[in-house]
Order: sequence, then structure tokens, then C-alpha cells
Amino acid sequence: MTYKLSQIIQKIGLNFSGNDIDIDGIHTLSEATSTQLSFFNSEKFLDQLPLTKAAAVFIDEKYANLLPSTSVALVTDEAYLKLALASKFFAHKLESKGGHPSMGDGCDIDKRVRFGKNVTLGCNVTILAGCYVGDNVTVGSDTLLHPNVTLYHGTQLGERCIIHSGTVIGCDGYGFAHTKQGEHVKIYQNGNTVIEEDVEIGANCTVDRAVFGTTYVRKGTKLDNLIQVAHNCDVGEHTLCAAQVGLAGSTTLGRNVVMGGQSGTAGHLSIGAFSTVAGKGGVTKSLEGSKTYAGFPAIDHKIWLRQQAKLAGLVKRKK
Amino acid sequence: MTYKLSQIIQKIGLNFSGNDIDIDGIHTLSEATSTQLSFFNSEKFLDQLPLTKAAAVFIDEKYANLLPSTSVALVTDEAYLKLALASKFFAHKLESKGGHPSMGDGCDIDKRVRFGKNVTLGCNVTILAGCYVGDNVTVGSDTLLHPNVTLYHGTQLGERCIIHSGTVIGCDGYGFAHTKQGEHVKIYQNGNTVIEEDVEIGANCTVDRAVFGTTYVRKGTKLDNLIQVAHNCDVGEHTLCAAQVGLAGSTTLGRNVVMGGQSGTAGHLSIGAFSTVAGKGGVTKSLEGSKTYAGFPAIDHKIWLRQQAKLAGLVKRKK
Amino acid sequence: MTYKLSQIIQKIGLNFSGNDIDIDGIHTLSEATSTQLSFFNSEKFLDQLPLTKAAAVFIDEKYANLLPSTSVALVTDEAYLKLALASKFFAHKLESKGGHPSMGDGCDIDKRVRFGKNVTLGCNVTILAGCYVGDNVTVGSDTLLHPNVTLYHGTQLGERCIIHSGTVIGCDGYGFAHTKQGEHVKIYQNGNTVIEEDVEIGANCTVDRAVFGTTYVRKGTKLDNLIQVAHNCDVGEHTLCAAQVGLAGSTTLGRNVVMGGQSGTAGHLSIGAFSTVAGKGGVTKSLEGSKTYAGFPAIDHKIWLRQQAKLAGLVKRKK
Repeated sequence: MTYKLSQIIQKIGLNFSGNDIDIDGIHTLSEATSTQLSFFNSEKFLDQLPLTKAAAVFIDEKYANLLPSTSVALVTDEAYLKLALASKFFAHKLESKGGHPSMGDGCDIDKRVRFGKNVTLGCNVTILAGCYVGDNVTVGSDTLLHPNVTLYHGTQLGERCIIHSGTVIGCDGYGFAHTKQGEHVKIYQNGNTVIEEDVEIGANCTVDRAVFGTTYVRKGTKLDNLIQVAHNCDVGEHTLCAAQVGLAGSTTLGRNVVMGGQSGTAGHLSIGAFSTVAGKGGVTKSLEGSKTYAGFPAIDHKIWLRQQAKLAGLVKRKK
Repeated sequence: MTYKLSQIIQKIGLNFSGNDIDIDGIHTLSEATSTQLSFFNSEKFLDQLPLTKAAAVFIDEKYANLLPSTSVALVTDEAYLKLALASKFFAHKLESKGGHPSMGDGCDIDKRVRFGKNVTLGCNVTILAGCYVGDNVTVGSDTLLHPNVTLYHGTQLGERCIIHSGTVIGCDGYGFAHTKQGEHVKIYQNGNTVIEEDVEIGANCTVDRAVFGTTYVRKGTKLDNLIQVAHNCDVGEHTLCAAQVGLAGSTTLGRNVVMGGQSGTAGHLSIGAFSTVAGKGGVTKSLEGSKTYAGFPAIDHKIWLRQQAKLAGLVKRKK
Repeated sequence: MTYKLSQIIQKIGLNFSGNDIDIDGIHTLSEATSTQLSFFNSEKFLDQLPLTKAAAVFIDEKYANLLPSTSVALVTDEAYLKLALASKFFAHKLESKGGHPSMGDGCDIDKRVRFGKNVTLGCNVTILAGCYVGDNVTVGSDTLLHPNVTLYHGTQLGERCIIHSGTVIGCDGYGFAHTKQGEHVKIYQNGNTVIEEDVEIGANCTVDRAVFGTTYVRKGTKLDNLIQVAHNCDVGEHTLCAAQVGLAGSTTLGRNVVMGGQSGTAGHLSIGAFSTVAGKGGVTKSLEGSKTYAGFPAIDHKIWLRQQAKLAGLVKRKK
């Protein structure tokens, strides 16, 4: 999808003057290409302003002069809200009209599977009843979808994956801008989800698509049931997550991380390779690799055990 | 559905004498109308006894004389259990036989959507494959149901809502009476669920119908994935719940409440408007508005931080 | 399914000499029959070695002489990994080809329900649209499946059960062996799931099949929404689990246990009859019956309350 910049700007209530250009998407300051929009809503990203390749940037007036000459400043005091409004232009059009997948040899597809347009299946793919495979999805060879799995448009599933019933992959990430009146405006999630090879995902999990770019579940990772992987996570290779784990947005797990049952992360953080987070742990900041953590906020497991002992001791002394 | 009071009473093993009357439902003492049954099972509701408009009330003998003359006392020492048995009379009859919805212009409905009887859709409604839309459901204009959503009978969905795959709305609340032998007897959940306009609900959520009356998710609220909203909750306008939040029965959230990931509430409590509960927080009593809370039991966020610091200090001193 | 032992051994890269025998399954040392394979991977089970009836056992060389003469020692320093590789031989073959169930009188089955082969339904069974009922499933009389329920092959559902939408029963347990390179090899979950009579399971729950043997949910038990029951659990009669509870593998609950919302267990433990675990509690070891527990790690509820009071006091004194 391509729109004239003037067309977008006018629709979302900003003024525009200057050369009109074709826009085909939205991305962050560091990732946007010369045909994409971007936005500046936090001083954290100040360093990225002069380097952005974005065609145009929603930005507060006081920072506008930091943009390179190749980027049009779209001046606004609500950059994030304008981004949200603009994101709708690039949302995938959902419709019931489907298509017939192209597929390799040996596939076994239940007749009650619904395919979107432009779906590609490898060889020996098995898809059982009630699954939905959205537009532009690819499924690798020897992959098995149990009944009632949903793959949203653009999802890429690797070879030899197993996806259990009720799991939803590629659903929208949870992203909203907020008006001054406290209303929430959807940031359309126009990225996608990539599940690499040899991944198994349990029943009734949810793996969100990225807002921009891609949410990854890397090769060999195994997820138990009822797990939430939020938008823009990158779940490292050979990672294990027990049931009811929740990974908030932009969590990065190194390879061979182990997350215990009902543990969670606060998002925008990373957990180093070969680390373990004990059950019910809550990770609130980035953690280095090859260690075991526990508690909420998650700390070194040994210290957590001593804290628990200390706490127990306090009460006993009271007797 | 209407039954003679004598018919109900006889079936559940109580004696009945007096004028027979028509009964068309069950509700609480304060809400029951003059054609409904009610029950008295806790002295908390003593004030409501003389004021009830209920046609008849399951009640212990010692309180029966507090009822107004317009209410028949159905004397029993197991009022809640008798209520449970009576509730089955008013349960919606579930059957596979469906119907064709009445719908406005511009709807896009996949042919693999199953409709119950008496369904009404607004204009430009999109419903993708595998959805189930039960009897007497209404869906507002411009609303989108992703694949494999289930709406139980009587659900009302507002305009411009987005419901993600695997989500179940209007399923039974978790309500049982208990026999002296420790068995649990279902209280049929004969209320419904109302989702107001501009609500987005993520994937694999569950929103229970009310036992009596209505479970509400108010306008502009956005729920992430894998969230539980129990029966008779009232989720205020423009509220945000991150993934895996659990709201127990009869939780009331004011407007613009923010619930962090994996947080929960104990039920029968309220959280004031514009409050935030941090991730993993567990709310055990009502909380006033415009504050930030954390921990379990949830307390003022600043005090929680100091508790955590104190706890950490205890261990360090031990070194 | 029956295979020659030589056939299995060759495929997974071990040497084999001796009498070839027919193998029809895999089980633990104590449960394996004389036509089954077993494995020894922990000294915890040393006592069981001389007593096993298994036809052949994957075992480290140093323990091989403890096996009875009736068991062939399959010598390997990766017994658990070899077990995983062997388990694939006995995996149920999943395919889209289904069948027509045999059923009693009075059943009401939506035409959009998909049945596997050899399904048996009792009388007055109601199954609504979008459900999947796998091979060799039995469903007892008067049971109701709400829309979009998935029953994996071999599941047994008792009489008068109610299963809410989105729930998945009999999905694979979370079991993997690990290579020296940190890769995870699936242990095919060839057991099944039995749900006894009068059980109600809420929406979007997951109940795993057993790795060997059976996962049980006993009669009269009621589960709320979004609950995880892992492989080889045994959930006692008349148990109540509130929403988002997670029971890890091989958890045994006695009768009339009550698990509060978002509570969980660490697995391989038991909770005694008539006990209560408060909301958000995390059970890390076996607990005796008829008591109330809270916190993580879960302890006596009264002590937990005193710990909380003590913790609160520490901060107040700091003022």
C-alpha cells in the first residue's frame, strides 16, 4: 500500500506544505526507510534523530531542526497520537474472501480449514479442522497444526513445528496512543510474526505480531500452554517457557533461557542466554546470562532464598 | 420462560402452600421484581429483607418474618443450594439449531460462521471463519470479529469493537452452591454480557456472563490477551488491562484504570478511577482512585518499594 | 502399534544383540509391562530397578546389572534422550480423515463438528459448532460441549459434564529430553486424559494428556477459566480451581481442595484433601490436608498474614 504524504497528513488533521511524496509504511527512527513515516516521542531517541532515513517524522516543534534535510518534519505536540492515526492507513484489509494455498507434496489438510489469499505450504504439512490460515502466511514442511489454531496474515511458520489447539499467532500487539481526554487510539500493528523451525507451541497461547518489524520465536524453542508473547519479543533459540508465562513487549530472551510457570517480564528488557527464571518470578530489568533468578522483582535465586528465610525468621522470633 | 412457583418448589424438594404465582426469573433481594425469586444467605443483606420486591425468597426460618407481606417465604436451611436448584429452570436452552441474522449494509460474514437464532448485526460488521454467534446476540456497526471467536447467547457487542481470535464472551460465571456432602451444585448463570462501543479485546480472553444482571466492559476499554473478566464485573470506561490479568467476580473498575500484566483482584471490590495496579499486583480490598498500587496484597506503590528495599537490606546485613 | 525391539533400537542409534521381541509401548519402571520399554534416569528410582517388568530398559552401564534377567539392558549414557527418540514410534498418527460417531438417543450435534474415528457418544449429548472430537474419544450421556472445544484423541469425558468454549483437553504434556548441545527432543505424550462425571471446565482451559498413563480430573470437580492442568495430574473429586490456576506436571490434589485465582503448583507434589490455597499462592512442596495456605512459597495462611504484618511494620518504623 502506498499513499501520498499529503493524503495521510490531511486525514489526521495536520497541515502540510512542501514536496509531496509516496509513503509505504511506518517504522522507528532507526529502521524507517526513505519511503516510510516515523515519529519522535521520547528524548531517549535523541541520538537517532539526525541519523534517520525516514521520509517524514511526527515531531515536536522544538526538536524539528535536529532532523536531517532528507526528512520532512511533521510538527505536532502529539507525535505518538498522530502516528496512531497514520498507522491505520497501512493496516491489512481483513475480509472473508479467501483463496487456495499453493502446497508441496504429501500435505493433509482438513476440508474445514480456512485459507486466506496467497498462502504457501511446504511438503507434508498437516492442518486439522477449524484452523484459520490468514493471507500471505507461509508454513514450512512437516509442520503440524492441531485443530482450531489461528494464524493471522503474514505469519511465517518454520519447518517441523507443532502448534497446539486454540493457539493464536500473529494477533495484534497491545499498542495505543492516548488523547488528552484519556481515550486510547489504536496503533495498527503492521509488523508480523516469524516462528522458526522445530518450535512447539502449546495450547491456547498467544503470540502477538510486531507493531513494526517482526516478533520472533527462534528455532528449537518450546512453549507450554497459555503463554503470552507480546509484540516485538525475540524469544531466543532452544528456550523453554512453562505454562502461563507472560513476556511483555520487546522482551529479548537469549538462547536456552528457561522461564518457570507463571513467571513474567516487564518488557523492553533482555534476559541473557542460559539463564533460568523460577516459577512466578517477575523480571523488571535486564538480567545477565547463565544465572538463576527468582522472586518479584526477580533477583539472584540464592539471595531470594535468604530473603525468604529472613522473612520466616522474623515471624518465628515474634512468638 | 415462566413457571408456576409450585412447579419449581416441588421439583427442588420444598413444601409449598399458599397462592400460586408465575415466576419468570431469579435475582438478588435488591433487584428482584415481583415476578422473580430471590434468596437470603448472609446477614450482610439483612437491611434488604424488608425492602425486597421479590415474589418469593429462599430463607432460613428465623429471618422469614422480616420479609414484607408481598414476598412468600420459602423456608429452608439451605437457601443458596435451593437457589442453585431453582436456577436451572431459567437456563437458556442450548441447541445446535441456528438461524440467519438480520444485518445492516456492508457486512462481510464468512460462510463458516455459525449463528444462533435472533441475531442482529449492524452495518459493516466483519466476522471471520470459525466464529460462533449465539442466540439473541447483537453486534454493533463496524465491529470486527477475528477468526474463532465465541459469543454466547445474549451477548451485546457495541460499535467499532475489535475482538481477537479465541476469545470467549458470555461464558458461564463460576458459581456453585455446596451440599453438606461437599458436592457443588451449579448456579445457572442467567445474566448476560455487554461490551460497549470502541472496546478491543485481545486473543484467548474470557469474559463471563453475569449470574443475574449484566457483566459490563465499558466504552473505550482495551484488554490485552489471556485476560479473565469474571461474572458481574463492571470494567470502567477507557480502562487498560495488560496480558493475563484476572478480575474476580463483581470487581468494579473506575474509568481509566490501568492493570499491569498478571495482576489480579479478589472480587467484590472496587478500584477507583485513574488508578494503576502494577504488574503481578494482587488487589484484596477496594482501592481509592488516582493512585498507584503494587504487590500482593496490593499497597501504595511507594510503600511497596520501601518494603522491597527493607527486605533486601535485611539480607545484606546478614553478610 | 507393535514394533520389533531391534527396529526401534536401530533407528535411535544404539546397538542391539540378543532375542528380538515385540514392543507395544513405553512406561515407567514400576508400570511397564513385559511388552513395554522403560528407562532409568535418576537414582530416585533405584529401588524400582530390580522389580521392573519392562521388556527392555534404557540405562547407564553402571546400573545395568541391577535389572532383572527378564529385562534387556539397552545401555546408553543418554537414557532419557533415547526414551524421547523411542517415544515417537508410539505416537498416535494424526490425520484429517475422520469418521461418524456411534451415539445414543437424543444427541444434538452441530453439523460443523468434526469427529475422528471410533468416537462414542452416550445419550443426550450436545456438541455445538466448531468442536473437534478426536479419534477414540468417548463422551458420557448428558454432557454438553460449548462451541469451539477441542478434545484430542483418546480423551474420555464422563456423564453430565459441561465444557466451555475454547477449552482444549488432551493436548500434549510439556516433556522434552535435552541433547548435549542444548536442543530439546520431544517425548511423545502417548497417555490420555480422563474427565470423570459431573465435571465443569470453564473457557480456554488446557488439560494435558499424560506422557504415560492418564491425567485425571475426578468427579464433581469444577474448573474456572484459563486454567492449566499439566500432564499426569490427578485432580481430586469435588475440587474447585478459580481462574488462571496452573497445576504443573504430576500434581495430585485430594478431594475438595480449593485453589484460589492465579495460584499454582510446582509439580510432583500433592495437596491434601479439604485444603485451600489462597489466590496467587505458589505451592512448592506437598501440603497436608484440611488447612489453609497462602503466599509463595505457600505456607500456613496465618503465618503468612503475620509475615505480611511484620513486613509492613518494618517500613512504618522507618518513618
